[in-house]
Amino acid sequence: MKIICTKSNLVKGVSIVSKAVPSKTTMPILECILIDATTDTIKLTANDMELGIETTIEGTILQKGIIALDAKIFSEIVRKLPDNEVIIETNSNLQTLITCEKAKFNISGKSGEDFSYLPYIEKKDCITLSEFTLKEVIRQTIFSISDMDSNKLMSGELFEVDQNILKVVSLDGHRISIRKIELKESYEPRKVVVPGKTLQEISKILSGETESEVTIYFTNNHIVFEFSNTVVVSRLIEGEYFRIDQMLSNDYETKVRINKKELLSCIDRATLLVKEGDKKPIIINITDESMQLKIQSQIGSMNEEIMITKDGKDLLIGFNPKFLIDALRVIDDEEVSLYFMNAKAPCFIKDEEQSYIYLILPVNFNAAA
Amino acid sequence: MKIICTKSNLVKGVSIVSKAVPSKTTMPILECILIDATTDTIKLTANDMELGIETTIEGTILQKGIIALDAKIFSEIVRKLPDNEVIIETNSNLQTLITCEKAKFNISGKSGEDFSYLPYIEKKDCITLSEFTLKEVIRQTIFSISDMDSNKLMSGELFEVDQNILKVVSLDGHRISIRKIELKESYEPRKVVVPGKTLQEISKILSGETESEVTIYFTNNHIVFEFSNTVVVSRLIEGEYFRIDQMLSNDYETKVRINKKELLSCIDRATLLVKEGDKKPIIINITDESMQLKIQSQIGSMNEEIMITKDGKDLLIGFNPKFLIDALRVIDDEEVSLYFMNAKAPCFIKDEEQSYIYLILPVNFNAAA
Repeated sequence: MKIICTKSNLVKGVSIVSKAVPSKTTMPILECILIDATTDTIKLTANDMELGIETTIEGTILQKGIIALDAKIFSEIVRKLPDNEVIIETNSNLQTLITCEKAKFNISGKSGEDFSYLPYIEKKDCITLSEFTLKEVIRQTIFSISDMDSNKLMSGELFEVDQNILKVVSLDGHRISIRKIELKESYEPRKVVVPGKTLQEISKILSGETESEVTIYFTNNHIVFEFSNTVVVSRLIEGEYFRIDQMLSNDYETKVRINKKELLSCIDRATLLVKEGDKKPIIINITDESMQLKIQSQIGSMNEEIMITKDGKDLLIGFNPKFLIDALRVIDDEEVSLYFMNAKAPCFIKDEEQSYIYLILPVNFNAAA
Repeated sequence: MKIICTKSNLVKGVSIVSKAVPSKTTMPILECILIDATTDTIKLTANDMELGIETTIEGTILQKGIIALDAKIFSEIVRKLPDNEVIIETNSNLQTLITCEKAKFNISGKSGEDFSYLPYIEKKDCITLSEFTLKEVIRQTIFSISDMDSNKLMSGELFEVDQNILKVVSLDGHRISIRKIELKESYEPRKVVVPGKTLQEISKILSGETESEVTIYFTNNHIVFEFSNTVVVSRLIEGEYFRIDQMLSNDYETKVRINKKELLSCIDRATLLVKEGDKKPIIINITDESMQLKIQSQIGSMNEEIMITKDGKDLLIGFNPKFLIDALRVIDDEEVSLYFMNAKAPCFIKDEEQSYIYLILPVNFNAAA
């Protein structure tokens, strides 16, 4: 194999596919990036068997061929080369010579035959949305997946298509995050659970531009994301997702309208009195026109008052401050509405159209303290 | 005690003195920042017994007093307060109330009496230079102090004043870094060894402006740096510093003029084939008009050629690439001169005026490899 391409194209491609290289594995071939120049395009691929990424880079193929190179070493070499044309050349012993200006690197490769190619996916069942929207919806929900291995379904997110609505849901037993996105077209109903890791890695690759489109294909076992010159294939998580509809309710006894930034900064300040692992609740006292927030720990105490518009009963309720912070951080509205039933029922943060719903369970606390 | 000052002044002051708060200590009082408002200025102090920092912040003293607050908690609280006026108020039980807008923090303080004040220093023997120059000279020499505890003197830097020249020297057994700075005035001769830690912390505080001056006072046991509203006091390292003059020489058999950036990038690229802890030398082959650099490791091999101007004999010599990188990084010249005697004698990187001299010992290597 002998190919030429610019350093910048190579760096871009390598950094995209590297997201699918496992940090730990017992199979050395999975630590490699495959350079496939057997056809008339140069394709880079990495695949950890759960998640596979393939991207095409511009360049010239002088001699067709294929080679697998250690991802870490190859990407470090490529990144440190001068900003110029790079020649990658292999011989029959899989020795690979990487030349750029007067710099010459010589490393050993592995046979492309040992590499696990991406599974073949029949592309028929698909939806499209912008890179921006996909990146945003991942950011707005990914924080409430569970990293516990005990329940595989909780480590993924529900992607549910119904007509022209894509609903994305994550939950971890203490909270639920729901985002609804309006699609340009109507589609057949679809429900899949996508691994959280896939979504985390894909959101690093997505450019986030509103003008570039992502096409998402579904099969029974896989989901495929296609955008720019890149294809991401991931296994789905098997099983039926939690029935969340029965946990949602539109009734409330107390409704609060509050400035989001003020509330977020206040809770953020309060958490610095809580050491990691220490489960001190933030206690919220809702009265007419004002919300008082209090936290008390071994380090000291903090209290602050925020002006609100209240509708309904007064309420004293406690929360894990991190859960409130996580939800408030990903809401773009200047003012948010909080809905409460009582001190033991979940709180809902949602907008009128329910384009977002964040459900957070309260925690018990000693009211006397 | 009751004082008022702006959040930004408080943040600035706390971040300066925090540099002298030890990360680990058996004496809880050393983990504190002292707020001293017993006179007509507000002074913050931290002191780990080796290094002490004191800074004055603007503000109003409503009631004189003194309190020691846990540095970590206090600085986190201060940083997260709204950007407004902050009131710090203590009661007779050392409870401290920090108020800013509607946020109120309550933490416990410690008595100021338990705090170790900075030692009293008689200020007579001093030199002055700009913050910029001091910050630069530390950056240009600090990398070659030794972090081994076996030789205390190697963990510090020699500050030697002779007439209007300040010479700063560091060495670690494999290399020596020397920088000479011309001062505006002539001073009495002085030779002290300053702890590396002091210099590292002080260089984080120095603004690096050419117009602000630093005054450095010397006593037998201490060095004091005074600049802006800040005083840094540090113990000196006792003992006589190494006689380096006998290790320096102006003879050479080979002299090379080379583009610094080209050389640095080339060595930087070569090092990625060397895993940490692995001591692979970079082998330099100097011939007429060109320098060839080679490195070989288990990962692979790399070689590159750079155009040079040579004076004297051809030479094949090996170095620890990190030592060359460290020195080249802090030299601002576009072209540098390297002086060699033979493959077993040190290499000197220096300018004509010898305002900098970097001595690096070569390493043995198997020439056949």
